[in-house]
Amino acid sequence: MSHKLLRFLKNRATVMRLHNPVVSTNFTKCIATTSQCKIQEEVAKLLALKAQLAPAEDAAPQKFTLKTPKGTRDYNPQQMSIRNGVLQKIIAVFKRHGAECIDTPVFELKEVLTGKYGEDSKLIYDLKDQGGEILSLRYDLTVPLARYLAMNKINTLKRYHIAKVYRRDNPAMTRGRYREFYQCDFDIAGQYDPMVPDAECLKVVTEILDALEIGSYVLKVNHRRLLDGMFEACGVPADKFRTTCSTVDKLDKSPWEEVRTEMINEKGISPDAADRIGEYVRLNGGVELADKLLTDEKLSKTKAAVEGLQGIKLLLEYCGLFGIQDKILFDLSLARGLDYYTGVIYEAVLTQPIKIGNEDQTVGSIAGGGRYDNLVGMFDSKHKQVPCVGVSIGVERIFSVLEAKLAAGDISVRTSEVDVYVASAQKNFLEERMKICAELWNAGIKTEQSYKKNPKMLNQLQHCEENGIPLAVVLGESELKRGVVKVRNITTRQEDEVPRDKLVEDLKTRIAALNVKELNGSA
Amino acid sequence: MSHKLLRFLKNRATVMRLHNPVVSTNFTKCIATTSQCKIQEEVAKLLALKAQLAPAEDAAPQKFTLKTPKGTRDYNPQQMSIRNGVLQKIIAVFKRHGAECIDTPVFELKEVLTGKYGEDSKLIYDLKDQGGEILSLRYDLTVPLARYLAMNKINTLKRYHIAKVYRRDNPAMTRGRYREFYQCDFDIAGQYDPMVPDAECLKVVTEILDALEIGSYVLKVNHRRLLDGMFEACGVPADKFRTTCSTVDKLDKSPWEEVRTEMINEKGISPDAADRIGEYVRLNGGVELADKLLTDEKLSKTKAAVEGLQGIKLLLEYCGLFGIQDKILFDLSLARGLDYYTGVIYEAVLTQPIKIGNEDQTVGSIAGGGRYDNLVGMFDSKHKQVPCVGVSIGVERIFSVLEAKLAAGDISVRTSEVDVYVASAQKNFLEERMKICAELWNAGIKTEQSYKKNPKMLNQLQHCEENGIPLAVVLGESELKRGVVKVRNITTRQEDEVPRDKLVEDLKTRIAALNVKELNGSA
Repeated sequence: MSHKLLRFLKNRATVMRLHNPVVSTNFTKCIATTSQCKIQEEVAKLLALKAQLAPAEDAAPQKFTLKTPKGTRDYNPQQMSIRNGVLQKIIAVFKRHGAECIDTPVFELKEVLTGKYGEDSKLIYDLKDQGGEILSLRYDLTVPLARYLAMNKINTLKRYHIAKVYRRDNPAMTRGRYREFYQCDFDIAGQYDPMVPDAECLKVVTEILDALEIGSYVLKVNHRRLLDGMFEACGVPADKFRTTCSTVDKLDKSPWEEVRTEMINEKGISPDAADRIGEYVRLNGGVELADKLLTDEKLSKTKAAVEGLQGIKLLLEYCGLFGIQDKILFDLSLARGLDYYTGVIYEAVLTQPIKIGNEDQTVGSIAGGGRYDNLVGMFDSKHKQVPCVGVSIGVERIFSVLEAKLAAGDISVRTSEVDVYVASAQKNFLEERMKICAELWNAGIKTEQSYKKNPKMLNQLQHCEENGIPLAVVLGESELKRGVVKVRNITTRQEDEVPRDKLVEDLKTRIAALNVKELNGSA
Repeated sequence: MSHKLLRFLKNRATVMRLHNPVVSTNFTKCIATTSQCKIQEEVAKLLALKAQLAPAEDAAPQKFTLKTPKGTRDYNPQQMSIRNGVLQKIIAVFKRHGAECIDTPVFELKEVLTGKYGEDSKLIYDLKDQGGEILSLRYDLTVPLARYLAMNKINTLKRYHIAKVYRRDNPAMTRGRYREFYQCDFDIAGQYDPMVPDAECLKVVTEILDALEIGSYVLKVNHRRLLDGMFEACGVPADKFRTTCSTVDKLDKSPWEEVRTEMINEKGISPDAADRIGEYVRLNGGVELADKLLTDEKLSKTKAAVEGLQGIKLLLEYCGLFGIQDKILFDLSLARGLDYYTGVIYEAVLTQPIKIGNEDQTVGSIAGGGRYDNLVGMFDSKHKQVPCVGVSIGVERIFSVLEAKLAAGDISVRTSEVDVYVASAQKNFLEERMKICAELWNAGIKTEQSYKKNPKMLNQLQHCEENGIPLAVVLGESELKRGVVKVRNITTRQEDEVPRDKLVEDLKTRIAALNVKELNGSA
């Protein structure tokens, strides 16, 4: 083999390795021994012929790596238990506040999403053009809500929406960030009096975080009008408000010096203006801060800033009436990236790291939202606005914290709710087991049995222990002859004889007692 | 204007009308009066300049028709109430049988779906290649389950999965068929004794259909091995079993004569063979039919047929033990289209039309499934099989029946669960209302109030009536001075004075009483 050819083949093997490690290995070997190569070629031809002959369904097992798409995952039963538990608690709060539930398709006409996400538009998943409409997967639940309101000419709605959204991001999956992830949104649409629905959104967040018992937190609030006014007062040109806002938004992750440098070098803000901004964004506090800023020489002359500060004052007052003022922090560094916010913005942040096993994990932001009064109008042919305010709960972060706790053995979950296992100690009791199962199912008792004709007693009891099933009905020939069965408490191992015709009644009593005990135990 | 130019412009206007009615109307006018046209041109130029100056978010409202993608729909709060009510009942049955819950991503690597759906593969939605993996939206929940089992090397699992699937079909949306629709699957995976899990799937279907109170039904059962054996015995060549099976599957919609013609003309089955098949597929019955066919001259000599018949006999025996034999019909015309079934197949069919308003609507098939022992092995590199059997509940058909009943006024649904509305008869009670709301929310009472500072009493009571809220707390100045509030029963309009500090307690008692009454009322 000439050097030139060898080099070509080696390069080719390298290229192929990137795509298919199996082929490239074969190919490298193939370069080594030409005779082997010949054999492999012939085998490949034969295999190709065979593939042509066999129907697709009988083809050889798949050669590709079995995996879920990048940035996605399956939820196994344990993860689903955690997920459903968290969502149930959240939904209970939404319902307590009278929210209705809606759902929208997983994809939208691409045009619906166009021009809503600024730079992030590149992260939208598009569907292939297979003839017909051009579609994209939803990027959040807010734009579909706005489309829904405009399309159906709905002026008032308090709704929650829990569904998966899609972003072609480069996710840090270990930290609970995925390309397919849940959003859990609560929004109030309608023309109402200032800050009344806004304050309720904050109340909802506190009730949810309290119910989830996820540790202490603070709800940072700020106002887009105040930010605009602040930029104006600091001498930022109007066309740079948004981009400056995006830069300020990085303050939760980067120190002021870095943010200042980005403002000056990348965004073209003057060093003086940046320094003035720097003085404001380090401020946070309560009503007294809002009062003080209302007398601030520069801000008090700026209409937008005054409007924002008055809004914040009213919001803090309402939070006081709701009894949540100690959880709220007025923070001038809070900016939030999304363009569509027009009024109050807020973000819930855990104030302590969460203990997982022996390690502390910082979680950070766990809910966020704000007011967006102009989004619905973008979909209305007459530009008719429907003011909205809402909050999104960062459930994926909550899931991943709980999953980490599960993995560390800090918590345990049951993946099924079975109360009774119907077992038999001897052979040939399948028919009797089936009859009893049907009787229990018909009585609404969560019941399982082995799908084997003659399962081993040990395996049956082990199944109960592994799955946290508290009770077993154990069938035996001598008992059945006497018209009784044994009921076994899996934990205590105590067995009682129960008349066959009183079984349902007896089990219901036992299950009720176990549930009461469990409630008391966890209280 | 020359005739030629006019014709060109007219054609152009027609073309544009197809895409943009607004532009085309302007354009048609523009042809009529040239001076107007000039003005419009200039205006358009100015608008274009303005658009360049303004950021994308401030652009003119969207021109495209606001709609959901073809074959999809939003679920409004009423539809969600129906949907959640149905799913809750179904999930309760799944849990009663000890099923665990899993979820998988909405898209899979395209290769995962390849070669699983035969002719229907053309209905798969692909995602656009935006760099990275090639993905498709899931077509059902069965293939993702098989992928999940193979990928995680799981040998036994009893799981349910409720999620949306996607098919680029031409759907009849009025009949509850969509391109995005829910599947609701229960499957048992594992190497067990014959027909034990299969019979439980049928029991699950009966419990669900009974719980949904959707009318009388029959569960048709058949066996793929019996169908194969029957085709063999009738002289169909082995390579035509599957295609013949697809044709037999049409018997639920087409008369035998049409099916026979398709077999002969399109599938190349001999008329003799088709006639022999015709004699078998008109048979249905119970155990006695299975016994009779086991002595049938042709079938008794065919191994596959005997295996199938013995399977059916065992299944019917187990259904007897489960007490559901009167709902099962052994029906030789049941074929089911999907290729992957290997054993028992079944389908639940409503036997009576459903009354909606004054009209009867035929619903037909409402659940279906079967055994598929070879699907998991297609994903395993060593072809390792995990036998599975499962059932899919046709929830979309159930939703659409209930939605039609709702539209006809036959049923009503509540879209929120609010128990108490906090109202005020006079102005300036927002603060007091907010305090009471917070108190009730903190006590776990589902509570709402108006988001207006000074709402009208009539509007507040109307909101309660429209939303089925049973109780209102009515604040008044004189009562508050005396330390009491009024509690109003919205239905009876009776008002009682309740001490302000006993309000939570009093409301809890009233809500409990209402719930008991409702339970008794609906029983």
